[in-house]
Amino acid sequence: MSVSAHLGIEDRLEILQLFARYGRLVDSGDADGYLTLFTPDGSFARTNPILAGTGSGLPPAAFRGHAELHRLVTDLTGQFQGKMRHQLTDISIGADGPDRARGICYGLITDWREGAGKLSMHGTYRMEIVRTEEGWRFREVTLERLPAG
Amino acid sequence: MSVSAHLGIEDRLEILQLFARYGRLVDSGDADGYLTLFTPDGSFARTNPILAGTGSGLPPAAFRGHAELHRLVTDLTGQFQGKMRHQLTDISIGADGPDRARGICYGLITDWREGAGKLSMHGTYRMEIVRTEEGWRFREVTLERLPAG
Amino acid sequence: MSVSAHLGIEDRLEILQLFARYGRLVDSGDADGYLTLFTPDGSFARTNPILAGTGSGLPPAAFRGHAELHRLVTDLTGQFQGKMRHQLTDISIGADGPDRARGICYGLITDWREGAGKLSMHGTYRMEIVRTEEGWRFREVTLERLPAG
Repeated sequence: MSVSAHLGIEDRLEILQLFARYGRLVDSGDADGYLTLFTPDGSFARTNPILAGTGSGLPPAAFRGHAELHRLVTDLTGQFQGKMRHQLTDISIGADGPDRARGICYGLITDWREGAGKLSMHGTYRMEIVRTEEGWRFREVTLERLPAG
Repeated sequence: MSVSAHLGIEDRLEILQLFARYGRLVDSGDADGYLTLFTPDGSFARTNPILAGTGSGLPPAAFRGHAELHRLVTDLTGQFQGKMRHQLTDISIGADGPDRARGICYGLITDWREGAGKLSMHGTYRMEIVRTEEGWRFREVTLERLPAG
Repeated sequence: MSVSAHLGIEDRLEILQLFARYGRLVDSGDADGYLTLFTPDGSFARTNPILAGTGSGLPPAAFRGHAELHRLVTDLTGQFQGKMRHQLTDISIGADGPDRARGICYGLITDWREGAGKLSMHGTYRMEIVRTEEGWRFREVTLERLPAG
């Protein structure tokens, strides 16, 4: 990742707010809000299989464009009953040019569906971020998960 | 939450430091330090019951003003023996005007009293934040907890 | 910790990026990358014993200078098999002068070596940070752990 020399301070703080809003929008099932984080052609992909019987149980998959991203959140809401929590931490961002950036962060996903909390998964999220007329948006989010299959 | 257009960069970084100090002040039992985060009429409230037999076991309650907030931290210190840890993440802030802001964040509360760590609770914290002559301070903090009762 | 009045905004954001990169460099076994966080005489120390049979099992120890820090990461990589995760949160920084700062943060260390994740340790990290010709660097990192011995 290049140094962040090309990203102004305001740019960096705005990008950090995209990361800060991500978990709550997924967890609360706010599909419309989730879309506001992405460009119209934005995508999310789970890139690796997880260990059988662990975490969400969901296979690798990619979702591109607002219709597919909307369905992603709606499906997760049904499965998780509003009781999974995604906490994004260790957010590092760098410029790829004046209007493009890359970010990487960790995510801890905890599961409270059965009462007492359980560690569900750990994720490494990688983001491609672009400046649009409406502000900075994710163009691509990939998630690499533990426990790995 | 409105966009953060009215909050200067220095304001946002200062507010983020209020969130960053919160957990350690509670965990270490530093009641006097905890008060420095709040306005004189500041309040903290646990807004929902948690599942019986989980987490802190503490019922919904509100604490307003420095004397009650001091007692809150002192009581938690006795119960938690300095071995609970509050980690605040996913901090999003926005302006409500030049001297008022709102913030929301997640908190993961882990319990190390019995040796091996346990997930105790997950929280969604919502903060009303105001500019004072001494800097930004929390006027109101509410905490919604999981496992939910 | 003094107020951050002496640290410019750019300084603070750059220092925060040191914290943001820390966990991934350790977890991925990128010893050379880890060294870029430190001054040439930089040090890391685990300051307290942990409870027998918990966490990493590693005793208190100090590592000073790049050769020892390199060996630290290499040894951890062997033990952890790339399946421990360090998440640093609640990062608070303050100036000790124009070219010196102090930081403190929490770390949650989770262990995914056996499949389902486990809470391994909680850490309080304290950093001495100095401005160098190459940018801000850690001069000293200490880690106080739970479960405490």
